[in-house]
Amino acid sequence: MKRSTIHYGMVGGSLNSFIGKVHKNAINFEINAKLTAGCFSSNKSNNLETGNYYNLPTDRVYTDYKEMAEKESQRKDKIDFVCVVTPNSSHYEIVKEFLLHDINVVCEKPLCSEISQAEELKKIALERGLLFAITYTYSGYGMVKQAKQLIEEGNIGKVINVNAEYLQEWLIDSIGSDASKTAKLSGWRMDPDVVGISNCVGDIGTHIENTVSYMTGLKIKRVAAKLDYFNQPLDLNANMLVEFDNGASGVYSCSQVAVGYANGLTIRVFGTKGSIEWRQEQPNQLKVTLKGQPSAIYERGTGYITGRAAQLNRIPSGHPEGYYEAFANVYKTYLGAILKTINGEELTAEDLDFPQIEDGVEGVKFIFAVVESARNDSEWFVI
Amino acid sequence: MKRSTIHYGMVGGSLNSFIGKVHKNAINFEINAKLTAGCFSSNKSNNLETGNYYNLPTDRVYTDYKEMAEKESQRKDKIDFVCVVTPNSSHYEIVKEFLLHDINVVCEKPLCSEISQAEELKKIALERGLLFAITYTYSGYGMVKQAKQLIEEGNIGKVINVNAEYLQEWLIDSIGSDASKTAKLSGWRMDPDVVGISNCVGDIGTHIENTVSYMTGLKIKRVAAKLDYFNQPLDLNANMLVEFDNGASGVYSCSQVAVGYANGLTIRVFGTKGSIEWRQEQPNQLKVTLKGQPSAIYERGTGYITGRAAQLNRIPSGHPEGYYEAFANVYKTYLGAILKTINGEELTAEDLDFPQIEDGVEGVKFIFAVVESARNDSEWFVI
Amino acid sequence: MKRSTIHYGMVGGSLNSFIGKVHKNAINFEINAKLTAGCFSSNKSNNLETGNYYNLPTDRVYTDYKEMAEKESQRKDKIDFVCVVTPNSSHYEIVKEFLLHDINVVCEKPLCSEISQAEELKKIALERGLLFAITYTYSGYGMVKQAKQLIEEGNIGKVINVNAEYLQEWLIDSIGSDASKTAKLSGWRMDPDVVGISNCVGDIGTHIENTVSYMTGLKIKRVAAKLDYFNQPLDLNANMLVEFDNGASGVYSCSQVAVGYANGLTIRVFGTKGSIEWRQEQPNQLKVTLKGQPSAIYERGTGYITGRAAQLNRIPSGHPEGYYEAFANVYKTYLGAILKTINGEELTAEDLDFPQIEDGVEGVKFIFAVVESARNDSEWFVI
Amino acid sequence: MKRSTIHYGMVGGSLNSFIGKVHKNAINFEINAKLTAGCFSSNKSNNLETGNYYNLPTDRVYTDYKEMAEKESQRKDKIDFVCVVTPNSSHYEIVKEFLLHDINVVCEKPLCSEISQAEELKKIALERGLLFAITYTYSGYGMVKQAKQLIEEGNIGKVINVNAEYLQEWLIDSIGSDASKTAKLSGWRMDPDVVGISNCVGDIGTHIENTVSYMTGLKIKRVAAKLDYFNQPLDLNANMLVEFDNGASGVYSCSQVAVGYANGLTIRVFGTKGSIEWRQEQPNQLKVTLKGQPSAIYERGTGYITGRAAQLNRIPSGHPEGYYEAFANVYKTYLGAILKTINGEELTAEDLDFPQIEDGVEGVKFIFAVVESARNDSEWFVI
Repeated sequence: MKRSTIHYGMVGGSLNSFIGKVHKNAINFEINAKLTAGCFSSNKSNNLETGNYYNLPTDRVYTDYKEMAEKESQRKDKIDFVCVVTPNSSHYEIVKEFLLHDINVVCEKPLCSEISQAEELKKIALERGLLFAITYTYSGYGMVKQAKQLIEEGNIGKVINVNAEYLQEWLIDSIGSDASKTAKLSGWRMDPDVVGISNCVGDIGTHIENTVSYMTGLKIKRVAAKLDYFNQPLDLNANMLVEFDNGASGVYSCSQVAVGYANGLTIRVFGTKGSIEWRQEQPNQLKVTLKGQPSAIYERGTGYITGRAAQLNRIPSGHPEGYYEAFANVYKTYLGAILKTINGEELTAEDLDFPQIEDGVEGVKFIFAVVESARNDSEWFVI
Repeated sequence: MKRSTIHYGMVGGSLNSFIGKVHKNAINFEINAKLTAGCFSSNKSNNLETGNYYNLPTDRVYTDYKEMAEKESQRKDKIDFVCVVTPNSSHYEIVKEFLLHDINVVCEKPLCSEISQAEELKKIALERGLLFAITYTYSGYGMVKQAKQLIEEGNIGKVINVNAEYLQEWLIDSIGSDASKTAKLSGWRMDPDVVGISNCVGDIGTHIENTVSYMTGLKIKRVAAKLDYFNQPLDLNANMLVEFDNGASGVYSCSQVAVGYANGLTIRVFGTKGSIEWRQEQPNQLKVTLKGQPSAIYERGTGYITGRAAQLNRIPSGHPEGYYEAFANVYKTYLGAILKTINGEELTAEDLDFPQIEDGVEGVKFIFAVVESARNDSEWFVI
Repeated sequence: MKRSTIHYGMVGGSLNSFIGKVHKNAINFEINAKLTAGCFSSNKSNNLETGNYYNLPTDRVYTDYKEMAEKESQRKDKIDFVCVVTPNSSHYEIVKEFLLHDINVVCEKPLCSEISQAEELKKIALERGLLFAITYTYSGYGMVKQAKQLIEEGNIGKVINVNAEYLQEWLIDSIGSDASKTAKLSGWRMDPDVVGISNCVGDIGTHIENTVSYMTGLKIKRVAAKLDYFNQPLDLNANMLVEFDNGASGVYSCSQVAVGYANGLTIRVFGTKGSIEWRQEQPNQLKVTLKGQPSAIYERGTGYITGRAAQLNRIPSGHPEGYYEAFANVYKTYLGAILKTINGEELTAEDLDFPQIEDGVEGVKFIFAVVESARNDSEWFVI
Repeated sequence: MKRSTIHYGMVGGSLNSFIGKVHKNAINFEINAKLTAGCFSSNKSNNLETGNYYNLPTDRVYTDYKEMAEKESQRKDKIDFVCVVTPNSSHYEIVKEFLLHDINVVCEKPLCSEISQAEELKKIALERGLLFAITYTYSGYGMVKQAKQLIEEGNIGKVINVNAEYLQEWLIDSIGSDASKTAKLSGWRMDPDVVGISNCVGDIGTHIENTVSYMTGLKIKRVAAKLDYFNQPLDLNANMLVEFDNGASGVYSCSQVAVGYANGLTIRVFGTKGSIEWRQEQPNQLKVTLKGQPSAIYERGTGYITGRAAQLNRIPSGHPEGYYEAFANVYKTYLGAILKTINGEELTAEDLDFPQIEDGVEGVKFIFAVVESARNDSEWFVI
């Protein structure tokens, strides 16, 4: 008989962590996944409390992720995948451990801090045929998928320019602050020991890179970047020129000190026959302009929405879907692929329409390239 | 020891029903409620399949709601509340049954078809001290709560005019259609036997009524309405003048034949010192204009958002919350009140910040008044 | 030889009057009209000063409009038309005087205070074959003309509902004010002796009436209105139900106490196949939605703009045209008709695409109907 | 006695030229300037026809601009300034001629093609104390002036980043076109002999440079640019990194192949305490966000608008002012300065609030720097 329910574990995500609950709630949109094991926190009481909260049996609340990987891999009812939601610097070791125990992985972005580590994880995952998702959330939005499809089908012609930005304001008070105040404001995000060589580009610049790449199918050939640090240990503001493999140009901006912008990811793709514009803060709409015609405002959930965007539609048009639904779409697709694999079914390209390990590797390379270019006075850095 | 988990049942909501899943997903945002009993469909196999899908024990998948009320009320681990999501005409009988078995109720709107029935249900619920929620979703949005608070605190002065509309387009093809095509398009929504005297006003006009009432604290004194039927059995379009108990004027429009509008609920409240505007399709923003000042665009999740809107915030600003979160907010508050009651704690006014049986009664009266006025050539009808 | 230049006179419009300059600047967009006579103010020194400012010969700066009509009508180089920009109550006498001297007239709206007077003026103008324009400015916007054309051509099907509003905030402080303060705020606009039976409906409600009528070609059959006076001598806020001659419904709101709205005229026309939406404050765009398609944002000056909207285009798309251009469009068309008439050419329907005396009469009837309905507790008043 | 009327001449601007009429109409907003001389076209009959159209005496319709400069300079009633609206490449010679005859100049942008020429013109103008305006129109918008004032007063703190773009679509068909089709599409704009080293940056990129410089008071220190030619003789698309003299970063994009954008100039200035955003296509609004507060939408013509923006206000708020008014504001200020100078009055800084010769020089330098950087593979070019 076919399996219809999936069991998963979580590393990180104790009750006082934000992102753990986001993953949990996103998964909750689908009813066929059950949290059955976890190693939520290095703090023992937090760990237990979280396990208790999620009704886990105590023997599956692990104090150590290595023990978890080891023991789970030996169970008959072992977890089908693990969800890694710890701070960036620990991803590599944890992810590797689970992969080596043949457990599928969902990992928060960015994948890790070093290109070599990223490539190693990719190699392991591919060799062992494991399903690996990296939660670049924004590719999960239906209208991003609709944009991708419209571009793929040639509606806007050949892409010639991409203008993308991701602007936030939450770290504005770090300008002029001393180290301790900055640390208080930013948590571990400004700590090079945890996040590596970049804060802003690593945290949100990579979302631009991934979303544009997903939408357009283009790969970045080289970047010329200028980073602003405002006397802080890591970057808070970045502007960069981009050149894609098809010769198209681009300009990306990301900032955590852009007052007036809460989470302003905006992607504009210009082609020889039209353009497409998507704004994360109004995610249910998509502006599509074909040459010589009025701009058209596509609306999620309507009859002219097709393909993946239609498949992943949850509620009728005009009833706003938001960030959680995008997250849930990543999981829905991933869970579907897991189930098919468990049940010995063939996976199609569509089944794999979630950000994969390759996307994780590209993200790490992108961060490296941007920081290197900035270090060399904005000289082009070839990726 | 205090209870921390709630058990609930559902009447209606089989797998092929839309609204059942919406309730389920909305409840899923909170982790402390568990579906443990149901009577999902009069179709036996649908009923069983749904129970199975939700992992219910077969003895708690009931073929008859009366049996369910009876048996559940006798269990020690009985459901703490039942969620009634059947078509309108059946609400009265079902809700009454559970109330008479002292089971708390969450009911879809509108409450029922007749004012006398609504008053009866209210009487029973109040006499027995039961917690009753009616899912007027839109009052669950954080920014609607922020608007309510700003108005309550006097920021826009005395309310003098309300301009509200709820425009949809999904029934446009019913214009010029024969009965069978209309039925196919509209499901049971255009069937007087199921929905009573009104389609459009009953389905969405009541949302205007409830949301305005919640936001402003005003009660409607009388209405003068014009309904358009387009040769269909029930109304598809409605415009009405409104007079509130404080002397303020209002104008409400609702339509299911307004091409270009998916789910366009917009509320604008004008006062002597300012105005407030909220649009359901962009629910994370609120436009507030104080006399002599620039309009201010309030953004969910920011530091200046306070009170209930802040308490119910789930994710950081700029990460769109949508329809599900609004729904979940109604449940979150309701579940909190249930838990407190179970645990013998006192309920505060804040604990009851969800649409209650009184709102349900107001809704039924509103529908009746509007239809009566329209029947009398738009003569004012005093509520 | 054909005449190519037009001479005109002005009654009212002294230097400290706002509307005089608006007319002057609007006419200035065309180079073929020259102000050659005037009776600008009953204040002698204002009158002279204004004449001087406009470089008029002193013998054509008249102290009395009757003298002006008389003397001009006898000159060989007499004015081709007169522009009447005095307060409402004086329109009737002044306009009549010029018409009776066979001088074409452009008059500010509303035409006059009494229906009988309006009909009389219409009769005189038509009998004498004079060209009469009433400056309902908003029909001059290119995108309003584009909307009219799209509706005329059947793009949105049969009109079934119109939702229109004209919201301003400039008289908000009159709420709670005594008579003298109100007078100070509102100038003559709240003085029944000057404006007649209505302030708000007369001043801006008529703009709704005219613009909707122009756009849709529909005539109002009856209205049911509620006016709010806030203890002032005339109305400041109005909501009304409308029924058109084709059976369509409508709802109009106008207000001068709607904080947050400077000059918010918005017209939304819903048909069986689509809808059209135009906002005066963003006049270069038009939102057009056809059933089953994304909303299209039409942009002034683009290749798909056709007919009158294209003819009246002045500058390339994206370079905003505004209120003055709309005004100038009314004049441009009127001046064209004047010249053709002078030169003995036939006038086409297109030549007469400006608001005419009939529009003026409709406006006066509309004001009367609205005020009458409101006096009768919002009973329908048949126009 | 004081002069109150100004006489001016025009070089270029024959009837079939677009920009001539724009200048004429813009000047027409003020009543104290009169066109009295011209050399409108090298085509004799066009020249005469235009002179005739503008009612000029034939002896002041010159066939040669040198003759015009010479003869006008000798008249007692000579023109007070000349308006030069010929294609770019001819500006230098023409402007120089008039300056050397001590005639004030208004010149279309860009000033000329070579930095050395620009410096020379500046030197002559300054030495002779002539009033020189260059029509960078966008600094004429009231809300741009309001933005400038808010920034100057420190409301948004120290500027740390500028994100500006000017996107158009009108040359999209030049991609893939041969030379003759491109020439047909673009007129002389793509002809290096007429416009010099740049099309897109020269035509619209300089508007970004000037408007940002005006708004912020910042000077560009260096640029790193990438230009796209699409096999055409000159650039059609440009992206660039910018560094300002105060250390702030910036990113500028301009394009004539951005489908969906008619004339999309958008300036966003981010500071340590807030941000300001202005969009040319909706020029009557300004978005101002102060740290920790909701975004405020400033509206032209309201009571909180102050300083120059208030002085230059023409019509009440909500009645859209557009491109012409911005243009007219440049002229109004310039004409005021001319009159004061004629009448021997002292000029204040406010009197000189129009783009001057220095702005023209900056523009030429900017174009050169951008093109040079692009030629050197986007290496920073210090201005």
